[in-house]
Amino acid sequence: MPTSIPADSVGLVQPQQFQFDQPLELACGRQLDSYSLTVETYGTLNADRSNAILVCHALSGNHHLAGYHSMDDPKPGWWDSAIGPGKVIDTNRFFVVGLNNLGGCHGSSGPNQPNPETGAPYGPDFPIVTVPDWVQSQARLADRLGIQQWAAVIGGSLGGMQALQWAIDYPQRLRHCIIIAAAARLSAQNIAFNEVARQAITRDPQFHDGHYYAKQAIPKTGLMLARMVGHITYLSDDGMREKFGRDMKSGKLSFDLSPQFEIESYLQYQGERFSAAFDANTYLLMTRALDYYDPAASFGDSLSEAVRGAQCKFKVISFTTDWRFSPERSREIVDALIDAGKAVSYAEIDSPQGHDAFLIPIPRYMEVFGACMGQVAADIPSSAQESR
Amino acid sequence: MPTSIPADSVGLVQPQQFQFDQPLELACGRQLDSYSLTVETYGTLNADRSNAILVCHALSGNHHLAGYHSMDDPKPGWWDSAIGPGKVIDTNRFFVVGLNNLGGCHGSSGPNQPNPETGAPYGPDFPIVTVPDWVQSQARLADRLGIQQWAAVIGGSLGGMQALQWAIDYPQRLRHCIIIAAAARLSAQNIAFNEVARQAITRDPQFHDGHYYAKQAIPKTGLMLARMVGHITYLSDDGMREKFGRDMKSGKLSFDLSPQFEIESYLQYQGERFSAAFDANTYLLMTRALDYYDPAASFGDSLSEAVRGAQCKFKVISFTTDWRFSPERSREIVDALIDAGKAVSYAEIDSPQGHDAFLIPIPRYMEVFGACMGQVAADIPSSAQESR
Repeated sequence: MPTSIPADSVGLVQPQQFQFDQPLELACGRQLDSYSLTVETYGTLNADRSNAILVCHALSGNHHLAGYHSMDDPKPGWWDSAIGPGKVIDTNRFFVVGLNNLGGCHGSSGPNQPNPETGAPYGPDFPIVTVPDWVQSQARLADRLGIQQWAAVIGGSLGGMQALQWAIDYPQRLRHCIIIAAAARLSAQNIAFNEVARQAITRDPQFHDGHYYAKQAIPKTGLMLARMVGHITYLSDDGMREKFGRDMKSGKLSFDLSPQFEIESYLQYQGERFSAAFDANTYLLMTRALDYYDPAASFGDSLSEAVRGAQCKFKVISFTTDWRFSPERSREIVDALIDAGKAVSYAEIDSPQGHDAFLIPIPRYMEVFGACMGQVAADIPSSAQESR
Repeated sequence: MPTSIPADSVGLVQPQQFQFDQPLELACGRQLDSYSLTVETYGTLNADRSNAILVCHALSGNHHLAGYHSMDDPKPGWWDSAIGPGKVIDTNRFFVVGLNNLGGCHGSSGPNQPNPETGAPYGPDFPIVTVPDWVQSQARLADRLGIQQWAAVIGGSLGGMQALQWAIDYPQRLRHCIIIAAAARLSAQNIAFNEVARQAITRDPQFHDGHYYAKQAIPKTGLMLARMVGHITYLSDDGMREKFGRDMKSGKLSFDLSPQFEIESYLQYQGERFSAAFDANTYLLMTRALDYYDPAASFGDSLSEAVRGAQCKFKVISFTTDWRFSPERSREIVDALIDAGKAVSYAEIDSPQGHDAFLIPIPRYMEVFGACMGQVAADIPSSAQESR
């Protein structure tokens, strides 16, 4: 926890709740009659409302991007390394918006929140939402905030899919699209890992077909296993070797089932911590959103056609040892954008940290990202620039 | 099941049981006062007893390498593609020996077999055995069969670790060592995947601390999850893409938790089949043997020093898309052997099938392996050759 707030932090922040009563039609055919989004913002919206940045979160992220909720907060928001005064996403220049996506478990309408029709948690009755559904709900949030056009929509991993979808669905409403460590669709291997996670959760006896809230139960084992599998795929083989190697907990083998190697204790710890903090139904829903995402599917399997209507400038960033969303997947996005004649630049960052790299302030990554944000700032219409 | 036995099959075969009453000292410090090994052999041992081949099995393998146990057998032994009259491991030339390793669940002494002291299944009281322990027990089996020196010891994956250990522990007792899709030690990532499997099994409420036999219970969910994770790591990303891609079960999304993609159904099926056929305590034990294997550890972390005493010729084979036991790991073995001045040749086979490739009769693999077995045959001492 911070004894004092660092000078380059956005400081103490509080989430806001936004209620929406206009029904939202979802890809699954159902609709949400009303819903609520939990939102955090940092920095100041300029008079033109033209300096706003939307940051979309990944599987386990939320609205709390940066800063602290209290002086007792053990750690800052999940992208504090990139967001703050003078940081890459500079809150002296930009008005930054983060939200917990629909179906999340950090305050927005989702499985762990009350269904207005019953007063009890939605549980498994919360509809399965997709990346386009999220983008639609984010567009309504932009309307509410009076933001007609984002200076940039930015996201890593599942967040990058949302950024890409913004460019497809609302081409007039963003000037820059920054897609980090993402893919235009998951591979079979990725779906397979997600399915292991789902099986671990749904077969946990504490899952009760998703109605565990009423039973005062939590499918902790399932969530722990899901997170352990996930965590392995977020790190690289090389990165794990560097960080853990074959280091033993006690220096020698004890020939029993207790953790013998440091990597085992680490994963158990990560898994257990996660299982105490995250909602199982949300995990299922987020992995389904990942699996289903495939913007090319409705354009004859052509990603080039899917992005043809986009108007913004694109930046695509990948990391050399990311095998969950490998550079190859990023290059597919870049190739489609080039094929469609879009303005795109691409950077592949050398890093041993695997998929996790997108959350780490690697110097070269921050340089590239910073140059990109300089472009975003330069493209803020001049009347707004002058008014600052 | 075979309506008729193929001409190049070893045909109908039966396992034999070998009882050993000389205590076996184990690496963990415990000993087995007596134990039993389940064994299958194919072909004929020559007068010199010099044409014997030992095939060591991997994590889920056993003694049943080739042929059928009955005309109702749904499929042949696990390496039937490589073993038989006229096949790569030619049973017209060689006497082939397969065994279920100690701690296995297919008849040899192990967790699901009676502890002679109590009459009840050993369960978790069966000692954790290591690759060197297995090799020691295999050497005693060789003694019993009157085989002073193997023409070759061959193994893939965990089996390859046993072959390597033979060359280290019993340099006089093998002429050729064939190490396929293996590693001289697991990486942190490999250990991590094994730990997910162990957590899935040991946290299954049906596991009962390993004493599930007495409860008429089976930790099926844990075993299923373990196998699903394992299976993903045995295939390659490319191979999965080729085989499954994003093919849907029903042609379109149904927006529920049932399997939507072919890869999901496939993994569930594989996992469920495995959980009905394999013993959970054995799975735990086999993964520990994998994790612990590290012959360099007792030679100042130098694999070159570990293999310095070896006398046999080595063949090391890897597969391009194998990421569980990558070509890089095989090259570490090759480099150590070269450094130690040993006779070694190495082949990296181009294949999309990942780790599973070692079980598949890929033409180039079979050519390379066949040439190698020609060498093994040529090195059978001439008196024996003449007597054939």
